[in-house]
Amino acid sequence: MKKFQVIFLPSGRRGEVPEGKTVIEASRELGVGIESLCGGNRSCGKCKVRWIEGRLSPFTEEEANLITESERVKGYRLGCAAQILGNVQIFIPEESRTQEQVIRKEASQISIELKPVLALRYVELSPPTLHDPLGEFDRLQKALSEKYHLPTKIHIDYPALLRLSQVLREGDWKVTVATWMDEEILDVKPGRVEDLYGVAIDVGTTTVAGYLCNLRSGELIASQSMMNPQVVYGEDVMSRITYTATHPDGLEKVHQSIIDALNQLIGAVAQRSGLSSEDILELTIVGNTVMHHLLLKIDPRYLGISPFTPVIHRSMDVKARDLGLKLHPSANIHILPVEAGFVGADNVGVLIAEEPYRQDEMVLIIDIGTNGELVMGNRERLLSSSCATGPALEGAHIKFGMRAAPGAIERVSIDSKTLEVNFKTIGEKDWQLKSKRASAIGICGSAIIDVVAELFRNRVINQGGGFNKNIPTPRLRISAEGPEFVVAWKDQTSIGKDITITQQDIRNVQLAKGALYAGAKLMMQKLGIEKLDQVILAGAFGTYINAEAAMILGMFPDCDLRNVHAVGNAAGDGARIALLNRDKRVEADEIARKVEYIELTIEHDFQKEFIDALSIPHAKDPFPHLRGVLNEE
Amino acid sequence: MKKFQVIFLPSGRRGEVPEGKTVIEASRELGVGIESLCGGNRSCGKCKVRWIEGRLSPFTEEEANLITESERVKGYRLGCAAQILGNVQIFIPEESRTQEQVIRKEASQISIELKPVLALRYVELSPPTLHDPLGEFDRLQKALSEKYHLPTKIHIDYPALLRLSQVLREGDWKVTVATWMDEEILDVKPGRVEDLYGVAIDVGTTTVAGYLCNLRSGELIASQSMMNPQVVYGEDVMSRITYTATHPDGLEKVHQSIIDALNQLIGAVAQRSGLSSEDILELTIVGNTVMHHLLLKIDPRYLGISPFTPVIHRSMDVKARDLGLKLHPSANIHILPVEAGFVGADNVGVLIAEEPYRQDEMVLIIDIGTNGELVMGNRERLLSSSCATGPALEGAHIKFGMRAAPGAIERVSIDSKTLEVNFKTIGEKDWQLKSKRASAIGICGSAIIDVVAELFRNRVINQGGGFNKNIPTPRLRISAEGPEFVVAWKDQTSIGKDITITQQDIRNVQLAKGALYAGAKLMMQKLGIEKLDQVILAGAFGTYINAEAAMILGMFPDCDLRNVHAVGNAAGDGARIALLNRDKRVEADEIARKVEYIELTIEHDFQKEFIDALSIPHAKDPFPHLRGVLNEE
Repeated sequence: MKKFQVIFLPSGRRGEVPEGKTVIEASRELGVGIESLCGGNRSCGKCKVRWIEGRLSPFTEEEANLITESERVKGYRLGCAAQILGNVQIFIPEESRTQEQVIRKEASQISIELKPVLALRYVELSPPTLHDPLGEFDRLQKALSEKYHLPTKIHIDYPALLRLSQVLREGDWKVTVATWMDEEILDVKPGRVEDLYGVAIDVGTTTVAGYLCNLRSGELIASQSMMNPQVVYGEDVMSRITYTATHPDGLEKVHQSIIDALNQLIGAVAQRSGLSSEDILELTIVGNTVMHHLLLKIDPRYLGISPFTPVIHRSMDVKARDLGLKLHPSANIHILPVEAGFVGADNVGVLIAEEPYRQDEMVLIIDIGTNGELVMGNRERLLSSSCATGPALEGAHIKFGMRAAPGAIERVSIDSKTLEVNFKTIGEKDWQLKSKRASAIGICGSAIIDVVAELFRNRVINQGGGFNKNIPTPRLRISAEGPEFVVAWKDQTSIGKDITITQQDIRNVQLAKGALYAGAKLMMQKLGIEKLDQVILAGAFGTYINAEAAMILGMFPDCDLRNVHAVGNAAGDGARIALLNRDKRVEADEIARKVEYIELTIEHDFQKEFIDALSIPHAKDPFPHLRGVLNEE
Repeated sequence: MKKFQVIFLPSGRRGEVPEGKTVIEASRELGVGIESLCGGNRSCGKCKVRWIEGRLSPFTEEEANLITESERVKGYRLGCAAQILGNVQIFIPEESRTQEQVIRKEASQISIELKPVLALRYVELSPPTLHDPLGEFDRLQKALSEKYHLPTKIHIDYPALLRLSQVLREGDWKVTVATWMDEEILDVKPGRVEDLYGVAIDVGTTTVAGYLCNLRSGELIASQSMMNPQVVYGEDVMSRITYTATHPDGLEKVHQSIIDALNQLIGAVAQRSGLSSEDILELTIVGNTVMHHLLLKIDPRYLGISPFTPVIHRSMDVKARDLGLKLHPSANIHILPVEAGFVGADNVGVLIAEEPYRQDEMVLIIDIGTNGELVMGNRERLLSSSCATGPALEGAHIKFGMRAAPGAIERVSIDSKTLEVNFKTIGEKDWQLKSKRASAIGICGSAIIDVVAELFRNRVINQGGGFNKNIPTPRLRISAEGPEFVVAWKDQTSIGKDITITQQDIRNVQLAKGALYAGAKLMMQKLGIEKLDQVILAGAFGTYINAEAAMILGMFPDCDLRNVHAVGNAAGDGARIALLNRDKRVEADEIARKVEYIELTIEHDFQKEFIDALSIPHAKDPFPHLRGVLNEE
């Protein structure tokens, strides 16, 4: 097979790539990051690159849909369409580069009753003699039964058995035994051992977070996050399903990439704490249903088509070695149950962390990751649903949208008199009007909500979301694609152009918030309630969202703003809780079956509610708690 | 590293071998079989080879102990001592070649109540809908609970889960589920499946046998045996322990060789029946304690030193994949429990096959494999013990001894008038005096017993085992090593020399039979009994042994010859029984702990009984049942 030299600019990364590979494939082989939201489907236009010299395949019609004529003459191509046909040099514009994610999955302070599945038991054995030649394991089992009343049928995991002889002698027949659920011996160590360790993992579509815990004290020793490397196979869960369905070995590749990532993450978090991966005896994992399936190497294709059935709902215990995870050779993995095709183990994590099923108050929990999940109810009854919000609230399908990475505008305010804009960029300490730094690259989710809410508050857009063309400001202008509002002027950015929010962007935000709102309204109808007592914003996104702006937009039904809370990464909290308390695992399995999943798309009223909910604020809702917040006419 | 060309004659097998390797190591690398009873310890002398040309390391003192001066001048060397130092040609004499074993582990006709751990359950599911989107596994579990009352907590083995989606659709939601102990789902197959298969394995020190069974009908479909490839690492269990203790990676190598052998054996027996290894869902294994440990890759070193404690007594269930066995990906292995360091799972197999613990009569079971194991008792009480018989009864430590392979003399009779010898050779249909074939190579176990018994019956040897030098026959002669009796004249053999039985050989047989006899006597004392009602000769050896000759020798205490039975490979029968009946597994674990193991070497009277028992027949025993059988003076 012919190979050609490919050079990526500005990084200068270079290497040989087989003829016919796409630019995106070449970039993956050479370890260069190019954005790809649609998974190489030639539909998102986020992977635009600029040809410098050399031979690529001819410009296609599909590219013409996403690349303007003026871009085309400058050499712009789609990375997923253009193929390498000779030695080439390719420039990756800043907007198209994969950014290192700002990790927002910090662990919350939670108090957890300690009752782990693992326990350490110290025993002293008498060595065998000719008159008492009972086998080594049988001797150990007898001692464990006598001293700790462990069942006589306790099982020893095969790798632990292999080391038993040596360990018993190293410890001079005094050993510490690590047991799992009082059913299985995972390890035997010489002498007295006090501590044992586990890791709770939250596999998000975009971010993977690991929390290393001491299972004796419950202490959170270290936490660490990294990007989910599967993003190169598609930004959202649907693109990843598509990737696995349309590429030979696709499932294997996508699965292996998360396994490799977990090995790396766990190795790193252990090392930071003076431990090694081999010290980790237990892992708990949460993630949405697609992440759950891909991690297990289960074909996710039926999650993508009606009736969206998962292969398995209930929690699973699997040996780490069966998944290729390099922990202690006998380590077990506990994967929390999933609720439904679109409400996964991450939401179950949220549930056992927030425990709405123990409350009298009527609670709405919104967990916005790369998808929107809603839980509503109290101790009487609990509903869950999933909203196809689209990725707009995370910055995708937005003209200048991007993930929460350095250079992303994360906060926006508009002066109600001058309509001047001030904004804060990730990586900068001060707001732009003070810092005067020109570091903005794009807009991330929290700022998108801010912008739309501020535009509405200042009547730059109306209830329908349309621009009010009578507003006298140079920021509101008509481009070739329609009206748009300038958030950052060219000289305030590092990409050499104005960063704007377009009419289409606002429509996308309306679709997202409308879906969440309609979902919540429908769930209220189902529950027969008129008002919410509490709203909990969960998810990495939720930590940073401005509750007031979200309420102005009408992202959720009216609620006293004092009762709207952001709880951070509640899914990760749930994984930690399951790691430290075995009763909570039982609770998780029970609640995952008990919560009633509402498939919104088949609800009769959903479409109507949804259309009503596109307005800002919701047309039929008085939003009493917003009085005085909006600029009334 | 330098390499030299080594050519083995007469096969002509050749190849490059690194400098410094011994001739035996070179032969293993090139796939040529050289006998090695002591495991390369330069003590058995069975690996003699003849140097033809090229450079070997100098002749050592250790070799001088085992190679006569006349052999030395002809170029004889020990294969385990001589190292390759240049291109060489080496001749392997016929006596030193590893022979393909005659497989005597045929399956007996036994009737077994059918109650396997595995079951097949056919269910028809309704496909999921938007209104009933329960997960695929959960749906299956529900159906199994409803139709078969299987526990709701039933677990699905990870590999089976991975195929579930596809199988459910292939079978149009009608599937057959294979369950293990009603606890675990091992497989799901589309449509209705009627049959499932398992293999019972008997891992002998010398021979490995496999019995493929249909677990629905109980039918024995096919059986097959092969040599235990571990024999190249030492003939008996002690040499193998030594090998693993003295070679880096020794345990790994010895373990891997039996795993490879099982994969090969199971593949072959499955293929012969139109199946593949992947169709095998369950394996049961018996073997002595050292075979048991080596199979599991457990360090056997403590089995070789007092107090001879095994690492684990109880039965084990291990995933085939954890052992590297290539069966069905979810197959389980059940390894029967061991009784003691020298009474292994093979003896437990004998117990559940013969059930002495259900009998009123007092039974002695002698299981002679490469070691001697004794069980004595009835429903009241059961003792077991192990005898260091030495390998003489299997043909080792006998000048012309060999395994039961083609060319081995297996039967001998001596004419009481002329003292002429007739013998039968394995591979020949007729006895030698009729066939006149010169095919004999050596003498195997059954014939060794015959010879000694015949010599005693005809007073060629006396009660003490010494040759009666007054007997007028040219067959009795004095060699450089002492007196010997010619069994086969040079022109009746294919090795170009007389095959004899020496005074030392007879001593070795006396030691072996004395140990068995003394062991049995001591067990009778322990039980407080005077006579045995029944003697059962088990083991591959037992099928072919001449009960009368064994009794003439005094291998076991007096018993009515009509009540002496050979039951064939009872250990293998036990493995089959455990494969087909789960209750018998429970029984095996119970009886393995209940049987009282007697460590003969620490019994006060053993040495005295042993010395008394060296005589033929036992000096103090009238042997009433032999009256008329011996040639009385």
